[in-house]
Amino acid sequence: MKRGFGSDNHSGVSPEVLKAIADANVDHALAYGDDEYTAHVAKLFKETFGQQATVYFVFNGTGANVLCLDAICRSHHAVVCADTAHINVDECGAPQRIVGCRLLTLPTPDGKLTPSLVQTHLHGFGFEHHSQPRAISITQSTELGTLYTLDETRALADLAHSHGMYLHMDGARLANAAVALGCSFREMTTGCGVDCLSFGGTKNGLLMGESAVILNPRLDQDLKYRRKQMGQLCSKMRFVAAQFGAYLDETGGTPLWRRNAEHSNRMAQRLYDAVKGIPGVQVLYPVQVNSVFVKLPRAVWTALQQEYFFYDWNEANDEVRWMCSFDTTDDDISQFVAALRRHL
Amino acid sequence: MKRGFGSDNHSGVSPEVLKAIADANVDHALAYGDDEYTAHVAKLFKETFGQQATVYFVFNGTGANVLCLDAICRSHHAVVCADTAHINVDECGAPQRIVGCRLLTLPTPDGKLTPSLVQTHLHGFGFEHHSQPRAISITQSTELGTLYTLDETRALADLAHSHGMYLHMDGARLANAAVALGCSFREMTTGCGVDCLSFGGTKNGLLMGESAVILNPRLDQDLKYRRKQMGQLCSKMRFVAAQFGAYLDETGGTPLWRRNAEHSNRMAQRLYDAVKGIPGVQVLYPVQVNSVFVKLPRAVWTALQQEYFFYDWNEANDEVRWMCSFDTTDDDISQFVAALRRHL
Amino acid sequence: MKRGFGSDNHSGVSPEVLKAIADANVDHALAYGDDEYTAHVAKLFKETFGQQATVYFVFNGTGANVLCLDAICRSHHAVVCADTAHINVDECGAPQRIVGCRLLTLPTPDGKLTPSLVQTHLHGFGFEHHSQPRAISITQSTELGTLYTLDETRALADLAHSHGMYLHMDGARLANAAVALGCSFREMTTGCGVDCLSFGGTKNGLLMGESAVILNPRLDQDLKYRRKQMGQLCSKMRFVAAQFGAYLDETGGTPLWRRNAEHSNRMAQRLYDAVKGIPGVQVLYPVQVNSVFVKLPRAVWTALQQEYFFYDWNEANDEVRWMCSFDTTDDDISQFVAALRRHL
Amino acid sequence: MKRGFGSDNHSGVSPEVLKAIADANVDHALAYGDDEYTAHVAKLFKETFGQQATVYFVFNGTGANVLCLDAICRSHHAVVCADTAHINVDECGAPQRIVGCRLLTLPTPDGKLTPSLVQTHLHGFGFEHHSQPRAISITQSTELGTLYTLDETRALADLAHSHGMYLHMDGARLANAAVALGCSFREMTTGCGVDCLSFGGTKNGLLMGESAVILNPRLDQDLKYRRKQMGQLCSKMRFVAAQFGAYLDETGGTPLWRRNAEHSNRMAQRLYDAVKGIPGVQVLYPVQVNSVFVKLPRAVWTALQQEYFFYDWNEANDEVRWMCSFDTTDDDISQFVAALRRHL
Repeated sequence: MKRGFGSDNHSGVSPEVLKAIADANVDHALAYGDDEYTAHVAKLFKETFGQQATVYFVFNGTGANVLCLDAICRSHHAVVCADTAHINVDECGAPQRIVGCRLLTLPTPDGKLTPSLVQTHLHGFGFEHHSQPRAISITQSTELGTLYTLDETRALADLAHSHGMYLHMDGARLANAAVALGCSFREMTTGCGVDCLSFGGTKNGLLMGESAVILNPRLDQDLKYRRKQMGQLCSKMRFVAAQFGAYLDETGGTPLWRRNAEHSNRMAQRLYDAVKGIPGVQVLYPVQVNSVFVKLPRAVWTALQQEYFFYDWNEANDEVRWMCSFDTTDDDISQFVAALRRHL
Repeated sequence: MKRGFGSDNHSGVSPEVLKAIADANVDHALAYGDDEYTAHVAKLFKETFGQQATVYFVFNGTGANVLCLDAICRSHHAVVCADTAHINVDECGAPQRIVGCRLLTLPTPDGKLTPSLVQTHLHGFGFEHHSQPRAISITQSTELGTLYTLDETRALADLAHSHGMYLHMDGARLANAAVALGCSFREMTTGCGVDCLSFGGTKNGLLMGESAVILNPRLDQDLKYRRKQMGQLCSKMRFVAAQFGAYLDETGGTPLWRRNAEHSNRMAQRLYDAVKGIPGVQVLYPVQVNSVFVKLPRAVWTALQQEYFFYDWNEANDEVRWMCSFDTTDDDISQFVAALRRHL
Repeated sequence: MKRGFGSDNHSGVSPEVLKAIADANVDHALAYGDDEYTAHVAKLFKETFGQQATVYFVFNGTGANVLCLDAICRSHHAVVCADTAHINVDECGAPQRIVGCRLLTLPTPDGKLTPSLVQTHLHGFGFEHHSQPRAISITQSTELGTLYTLDETRALADLAHSHGMYLHMDGARLANAAVALGCSFREMTTGCGVDCLSFGGTKNGLLMGESAVILNPRLDQDLKYRRKQMGQLCSKMRFVAAQFGAYLDETGGTPLWRRNAEHSNRMAQRLYDAVKGIPGVQVLYPVQVNSVFVKLPRAVWTALQQEYFFYDWNEANDEVRWMCSFDTTDDDISQFVAALRRHL
Repeated sequence: MKRGFGSDNHSGVSPEVLKAIADANVDHALAYGDDEYTAHVAKLFKETFGQQATVYFVFNGTGANVLCLDAICRSHHAVVCADTAHINVDECGAPQRIVGCRLLTLPTPDGKLTPSLVQTHLHGFGFEHHSQPRAISITQSTELGTLYTLDETRALADLAHSHGMYLHMDGARLANAAVALGCSFREMTTGCGVDCLSFGGTKNGLLMGESAVILNPRLDQDLKYRRKQMGQLCSKMRFVAAQFGAYLDETGGTPLWRRNAEHSNRMAQRLYDAVKGIPGVQVLYPVQVNSVFVKLPRAVWTALQQEYFFYDWNEANDEVRWMCSFDTTDDDISQFVAALRRHL
């Protein structure tokens, strides 16, 4: 496999990110985040998300999600999430093992929670036999490539807060969502009442780097110990910080995160445009960010998988996922669509 | 702080490693280790440690140590280690939280376990009130810069095996030890009966990359799930594998790990030579790898810390640690020693 | 509240059980189960469930369930269960905290899993991002008072075993189920392929005593350590064993467990007969054991709760639960029904 | 074995306790502690330990200790204790598995911590690589049968509090200590600054019942959920409460706990008096409560163990433990001493 639509983490690293790493590779720096690079980028996070925001760099999305849940929950707490949520389906039970908490899952038509869906789990407060609902966790953009509007996010934050709960946002693809919503990171998080955020970069051009961003200072308790204890403290932190520095920097014009996400979203639209009219191909959800979910005959997608790696998303339903990346090209799309047509 | 002797993870990245990352940054690759780079480097590990060896790349030393302990232990087990062991002192309780096991610690004169020391913890087998001894864990080279000879390692492996236990080696600085012992990685691990190994690279010129190497195939059970669940599975794995590829590669002559470790060990000898005769400076342990532990008047080391960051290792004893890196220069040493003499 | 239909653990202790405790209260006995009483009753369990059965006494149902799951699962495993299962709803997240595993829940019409329901969760084997399905857990009788036939149990065991999985049965009310099915404990567990069993007594006349019964010897690994570590090892074990001795003993004719369960089941039938025809009362599930679930106007059940404690089972649906006990009397029923009629 | 000196949990149940259980066995009571018996006894605890005290009944000593540590610690915390502490040696790693925290152990001459011993572990505050010291845990009376004076307890509480830490007391044998010190439970706990207490009864005549008593209200957070989740919530709680009611009740004169503990302490003195002068028998610690530790020739104690069960406490040192109970008789002692003399 050389190129394809398997995942946005199949692509490599933006040249700007590699350059930032190389630029940071001079002399010595204190380890574990006590260095100037980290201090500088921590400030960038405050400018990006608000002065009350504190960033904890971690290694990957699992680390960011688990640290965020750990900031909110003890083991007797529960987290309400969509049954398609990454924290539910794709962490091999990390929240259960590391935090020890329960997830209260909900089926949804499109990967999105709504206040009325969440409400069905908001009972049993004070009843010691039940895990106590403590967080609502949403993914922005969702695992199905759909989006929460700002109002929808705010409504869930309000619902959480009215029950003494917190709103967590899994933002592994926050950049794609921001571009699609036409708003700033701050507006869609802090501005909507999000309490803590898993903010990813790896799926949008970083080498390796994610972060837990604590937006509600009440949640910023002992997290440096918790991060260390869960194995998410990087020693040569400057090289993670430098990546995010390159990602968020606006001094040179449009920042890298926006350029990359605009590109991958645009490519997904092109892919969508190219396949939506093909008989036998049924696009399943609104194409709002960088993924296209389609249903197509099994013989077709299994044949296509011989040439291109991509995930069958829901085998029972012949549903597959195609993702675009910051480095997807028009050629990639036309060759892929040609192959698809060939197999149909 | 620009340069100093604070830690071997204060130094940056070897140019060969950055180049390997850049070279791997072409087109797409499957994520999570299903890529060609990882397959290639996994083979290199087998050549290095023996065909029975299986490598699990992780993010950092905590990840490597905890995955190794998790391969050996369930929560009712205990691990015998020196009280100075990194797994005991410097993981903020990660083994307890993640594996749930007990550590049985032992005071030692020099950071090294011996069979007779370990023996004092080998009782209570079958008694359900006691955590069951299951592993001996040693650090090579130790946290105090000392070394286990091959015979000493083998004796501990034999002791472990005779009790149905396993030997874990924390090799965060295995390269420095190999150079000092004048042997291969394989001789000092597989050849001595080590069952699993935390094999580090970050302290010897990698950007970010460690590994759990399972040498005893009986321990290679379900670890891919366990690694994922503890948040140590890297998505863009090719960039970790590529680093280790550059580290272990012998096609161009002396491999990088050896060149770097030889250098840092040599620098520590020079530092040792430069300070050992200075009145008021007492070198505390044999200087066998890349660290020098000294006792010196508190006023001196606290003054020196104004100019140079380094750790006070045992404040009660006025004991401090100086570490050399792959990039330490003769100038670094002479300037540091000059500063030291100035404060004495 | 003096008497009522709140729960079968609101009732007290069968006199035979208190007598057995008093009879065991002579001289000294080894602690932690190394006593003659425990040895004797362990044999009774083998006679009851088959010679391959091993019993681990624990304190309560949470302990039994968690020890059983711990016998089957490590933290990267998942357990398929009904969303109404006690292990899911009523343990405050004990499986997550203590075992660290994931529960894969399923909505059901009547609290019962079926092979086709379970099948929807049996995928992702070998995929490290997903918790690996490892157990099916069913409750017999269910939390809704329904029953698995022997064939239904066997079908689930077969399904589990065909996937390398295990079948756990939560038998907090196994006695009520056995009476209703007209079969022996052995037929409905070992005989149907159940691998491990939470076998309760507290809801049927014991003072305090539950047990994890390992029916599949492959699961009987290290459990004495695990039980101790999770705080479920009783020191004066003879007094737990003696209770189960009185419960299972058949030397005096019909054993206590059967007498008590026959009585409570019969009382539930009487209660059902007394209320089923009353306008405004809708009985929701087949009354097969000792519970009656009804839907009735909120004003009625909240008024009735002023006189009698009972649980609203599903507030959204005005569904409440009435349970009969080994000590429920005809008078209890007629007074309760009179009160109900008064409020209607 | 019919009678002996193996442990104070080899003895049975005080008749007063069995009677209290039988007396509580009328009609129905709410489960899980929402009953009148529990409410009444909770008040007794407040009278006993002070109005700020809150009791959480649990099943056993492991449960009490782990709930107390859980009240104080999160997983990144550490607990300083003697290396002989029950929480360290005899819980099979329960604190590590359930709380996830680290224990910082100290060798002691007599099972007792002192401020200067503890001080050696009080460093690294704020350093994220180290588990943060959060509790000092002492056992009163200690595992070696020694006692903390009120002043000694207070000094440790003061030390803990001056570092933002808490003092936990493992009082599995608090009654024996209270009798020996000639003070009230309140004076030796609340009065000395103890923050939370494992208060046992099983070793002093109860059937099965221990408690976590939270003396510092700041620690009383969410514990009802935590107790449930760790499997320590009893359904028929009235029967645990009733035992403690009989234990603490002073309306009939000297309360049961005092009568029982005075007796077992007195018996230990008699045993001590009977053996202290025997050549070959070396009593190892002051006999202050109900245990006698002796060193004697291995051939002697192993022969004596053929007739009487007792624990070899430190096999390496030929050290064994003899415990007296509330039901130990003068005859028990004279026969035991006769057997001892026979083997010498």
